[in-house]
Amino acid sequence: MILQYDVIVIGGGHAGCEAATAAANMGASTCLVTMDMNKIAQMSCNPAVGGIAKGQIVREIDALGGQMGLVTDATAIQFRMLNRSKGPAVWSPRAQCDRGKFIWQWRSVLDSTDGLDIWQDQAEELIVEHGEAVGVRTVWGVELRAKSVVLTAGTFLNGLLHIGRKQVPGGRIAEPAVERLTESITRHGVTAGRMKTGTPVRIDSRSVHFEDMEVQEGEQDFHGFSYMSPGRPLKQLTCWTCYTNPDVHATLMAGIADSPLYNGQIQSIGPRYCPSIETKLVTFPDKQQHPLFLEPEGEDTNEMYLNGFSSSMPMEIQINALRKIPALRDAKVYRPGYAIEYDFFDPTQLRHSLESKIIPGLFLAGQVNGTTGYEEAAGQGLVAGVNAALRCSGGEPFVMRRDESYIGVLIDDLVTKGVDEPYRMFTSRAEYRILLRQDDADARLTERAYSLGLARRDRYDWWMEKKAAIEHIMNFCNTTSVKPRDINSQLEALGTTLLREGCKIADLISRPQLTLNNLSDILPELKQALESLPNRKEEITEAAEIKMKYKGYIERERLVADKMHRLENIKIRGHFNYMDMQQLSTEARQKLTKIDPETLAQASRIPGVSPSDINIMLVLMNR
Amino acid sequence: MILQYDVIVIGGGHAGCEAATAAANMGASTCLVTMDMNKIAQMSCNPAVGGIAKGQIVREIDALGGQMGLVTDATAIQFRMLNRSKGPAVWSPRAQCDRGKFIWQWRSVLDSTDGLDIWQDQAEELIVEHGEAVGVRTVWGVELRAKSVVLTAGTFLNGLLHIGRKQVPGGRIAEPAVERLTESITRHGVTAGRMKTGTPVRIDSRSVHFEDMEVQEGEQDFHGFSYMSPGRPLKQLTCWTCYTNPDVHATLMAGIADSPLYNGQIQSIGPRYCPSIETKLVTFPDKQQHPLFLEPEGEDTNEMYLNGFSSSMPMEIQINALRKIPALRDAKVYRPGYAIEYDFFDPTQLRHSLESKIIPGLFLAGQVNGTTGYEEAAGQGLVAGVNAALRCSGGEPFVMRRDESYIGVLIDDLVTKGVDEPYRMFTSRAEYRILLRQDDADARLTERAYSLGLARRDRYDWWMEKKAAIEHIMNFCNTTSVKPRDINSQLEALGTTLLREGCKIADLISRPQLTLNNLSDILPELKQALESLPNRKEEITEAAEIKMKYKGYIERERLVADKMHRLENIKIRGHFNYMDMQQLSTEARQKLTKIDPETLAQASRIPGVSPSDINIMLVLMNR
Repeated sequence: MILQYDVIVIGGGHAGCEAATAAANMGASTCLVTMDMNKIAQMSCNPAVGGIAKGQIVREIDALGGQMGLVTDATAIQFRMLNRSKGPAVWSPRAQCDRGKFIWQWRSVLDSTDGLDIWQDQAEELIVEHGEAVGVRTVWGVELRAKSVVLTAGTFLNGLLHIGRKQVPGGRIAEPAVERLTESITRHGVTAGRMKTGTPVRIDSRSVHFEDMEVQEGEQDFHGFSYMSPGRPLKQLTCWTCYTNPDVHATLMAGIADSPLYNGQIQSIGPRYCPSIETKLVTFPDKQQHPLFLEPEGEDTNEMYLNGFSSSMPMEIQINALRKIPALRDAKVYRPGYAIEYDFFDPTQLRHSLESKIIPGLFLAGQVNGTTGYEEAAGQGLVAGVNAALRCSGGEPFVMRRDESYIGVLIDDLVTKGVDEPYRMFTSRAEYRILLRQDDADARLTERAYSLGLARRDRYDWWMEKKAAIEHIMNFCNTTSVKPRDINSQLEALGTTLLREGCKIADLISRPQLTLNNLSDILPELKQALESLPNRKEEITEAAEIKMKYKGYIERERLVADKMHRLENIKIRGHFNYMDMQQLSTEARQKLTKIDPETLAQASRIPGVSPSDINIMLVLMNR
Repeated sequence: MILQYDVIVIGGGHAGCEAATAAANMGASTCLVTMDMNKIAQMSCNPAVGGIAKGQIVREIDALGGQMGLVTDATAIQFRMLNRSKGPAVWSPRAQCDRGKFIWQWRSVLDSTDGLDIWQDQAEELIVEHGEAVGVRTVWGVELRAKSVVLTAGTFLNGLLHIGRKQVPGGRIAEPAVERLTESITRHGVTAGRMKTGTPVRIDSRSVHFEDMEVQEGEQDFHGFSYMSPGRPLKQLTCWTCYTNPDVHATLMAGIADSPLYNGQIQSIGPRYCPSIETKLVTFPDKQQHPLFLEPEGEDTNEMYLNGFSSSMPMEIQINALRKIPALRDAKVYRPGYAIEYDFFDPTQLRHSLESKIIPGLFLAGQVNGTTGYEEAAGQGLVAGVNAALRCSGGEPFVMRRDESYIGVLIDDLVTKGVDEPYRMFTSRAEYRILLRQDDADARLTERAYSLGLARRDRYDWWMEKKAAIEHIMNFCNTTSVKPRDINSQLEALGTTLLREGCKIADLISRPQLTLNNLSDILPELKQALESLPNRKEEITEAAEIKMKYKGYIERERLVADKMHRLENIKIRGHFNYMDMQQLSTEARQKLTKIDPETLAQASRIPGVSPSDINIMLVLMNR
């Protein structure tokens, strides 16, 4: 049987769901091929979304018209803004979600997306004709044919599960691995490698001594993931903290010979910033304790997730070790932690559109590109879905610059530098992180997404209204003066220096002690201006305040970024035959040939390409 | 690793969930071993519970303190009482349920059951020591040890999926089959066979022309599945009906050579009363149409189930055929129908407790015993769970007689007659079906379940209150007289003959035109009596009315059943060496040896054992 679409998306995880809805919302007839419709967007590991830098990615997905933010808000059972003690450039939203409801919320998003079909089946072979991807063949012999194929297979490609010395094939625990698909892609010259990840034990809350743990409450304020969110409807729950101790460590280390990570059984590399507990012990032998977070899996379940205790040690050792923690001395577990090895494809063989350079028409997103994290996957998925749709309509590829979004940084890093371990986003990976804040992803992206046809009209309208409101407040603050006698006594009370002469409200805002909110208690005019805001007053107030407070930093970074644009604007793809350019270093010639950079700026970011190589190319371009 | 319990239940389907909760509620430390905690009690086929005779089973499960009735009421999206046009002996409740919510509702039941743990893993080998089942070994090498092991593996044992000529191993679509467990059981002398079942295509509601279908609405009255139900909280939805036609039939029959049911690919036998559409066409070649029911899968999904269109034809043929139905001319499907073959074990090797005669300590329930249907599975699961727990505490096995419950009929049929095709319950299988009504399962079973320790105190208390209320109403009707002049004009209006002399209310109730409700409109005293009922007035009124209306039938059937009890009370197991009894027919000697009946009544029901064989045994017993 043959089914015909514009875009086929293989895999219904976080990348696949965003890719499929994005492609369909762009007008492409789209089919999502998934093994199991009841596990769509399953959170395979931690039932949480966001976190440092990852939270910004979700805000960007939302600003672009993607779904992850809305689904997260609708199913959040605890929300916090991380990094509050630092500047707002690195504030990052994070939410614990109800694992089961997250799935059904995504199902209803997919169900209500026009032009999006779901086909429940397992992809087995990429169909390539005349060098281009034209579809996929399934285990049931169905041919799904399309102009673009998006592969978002997560950890399923030749997935191999490890617990102690025992190995079982699988894409996730209790789910079959996908066995032949990789070979149908590498056959055409795409390079595959192996990576590893892992997940911790799941615990029955009835067996936990919560009195021996510390409470970690969520926050109830206006923040959320989506700029369009109607709030967080679910009951908000408590998380818990405890620590490992030398007893726990001794129990684990006594079994280290049976650890697949340390006995040679697993050769591939896992996520550096999400190590297993045994890796933490081996890497930091002097540490007496490691923090653990016990997090509920949902509103109505006893299942809890022990964040920080990821392991592939033999299950007896895992369980004995965790029972050495006082709060978990009677812990009953539903299943132990495990590790999984899986195939990924070298992302330097991709363009910024996430289309394969080797097999045009094939787009890759998520863990198959060597990344880790739901948010990294979803961000790539959205970009792959948009570009898969644009390929059908003949539009220019949609690429975000590094000063435009964390997703832009992520993809540029992947395709320019490649990966030798699972890639996770951090704020430190972004050189313009003051420009890439969680509060302003809409400012950065929504207008562009609307003109692309991805963001809907209601999102665009709201952003235009919000933008005008922010400008109105800033304008008010820039033009309204305050006199020392009207304000000095209150400034004293707030612990900030007194005014000697009148100044604009905007000048006051830069002081760390002052905010629009506490100033509005002093200045009735300002209070009135804030109260007359249309809706989502707090969100608008925060955005305006951050823009004023950090005006200097923002402008400086903007300047640097704009300078770099000159290099970004110099397109070089197709201009050079690098191997013939004797002026370049051998390494630069090889790397440039491999990466085939789009712009001179991208060339400058390739490891092994030096500033002098760039200068040579600049000179040659000017000829 | 070794985990120790009283009872281990292998498999988290309808049988396994009832078995595990029953065993735990009986006080046994219990572990449910399931491959996937997110698919507990998954309705693999139709998202509906109940139906003719099956609905009675669910009421019995509920009266006994089981869970299926409560879960069904909590997740029902359409409810109907079937067979209303016939007598109440065959009234059967049926509900369409939200497939996803049904799973999570069951999860929360399991989660809140004390003494019940869940272990997420796959059983691979039954551990037998000294001839008795003592546990199970999993694919991950864990040994779960127990005094009783309940196996409820559904269709997973060596499951093989078929669509057209394509075959793929699997326990359900997209789920792995269990491959070595059967052999670890048959090795000890248990006989296994193969059966087949199937499921229809799933359709996207957005592609359906509902204007070309007939509506089938649910009912909103007080009925439900549980005697303890607080009602049906979910939004009630519409189902739809349409018909096949000669075009549909021609399309299917043109591909019959590729049907695995008719080209020799599937040899095992499927459920006679749930045939595939191709089987209907082959069996009834003259029929011009077959009815189909399009049923929603849940509150928030587009997925719909096409009841009546089960098929394992090649998927192209299935889809082309269904598009010949006007309402489905543009149908988009999520996946086609498929057939599955799986292992079952000869149920004549079981005792009435569902314990294996061959491997003591092993209890079997559900499709592994050759039955079909969620309700049949759940009923067996409950009995197996209870008896698994009783085996640990040393209690007498819990067995229900054929005049006590449909579950009793079901199990007696299984262990006495065996199966050569998937066994489904019908009212016609029960010889005392006037005694086995949906309205009185609590009267039949709740007191016994309470003394067993299975039904909880609140259930028992409510039943005692209800019982007293029923007796109060019946007593009132039996002692309160009505005079012709008070009632004759209204009797005339109701179309029933006039009274010539006074009579008791109870005598009037037997008339088909009269009910307690319409009589209460005439008789203020009766109205007052009904209105003063404690709560669930309608349920009590119905129960009392049925008992009065059908008094004669009920008493007659009770008499026959009591006579049969004499034979039921004659225990014969261990009394005879049948093979030496030359007076018996050869067939009787062989069958009696194989079945080893518990009582003379059971012996009389064994196919091949004649009344004269029974007489000979009776004579020998009296010596």
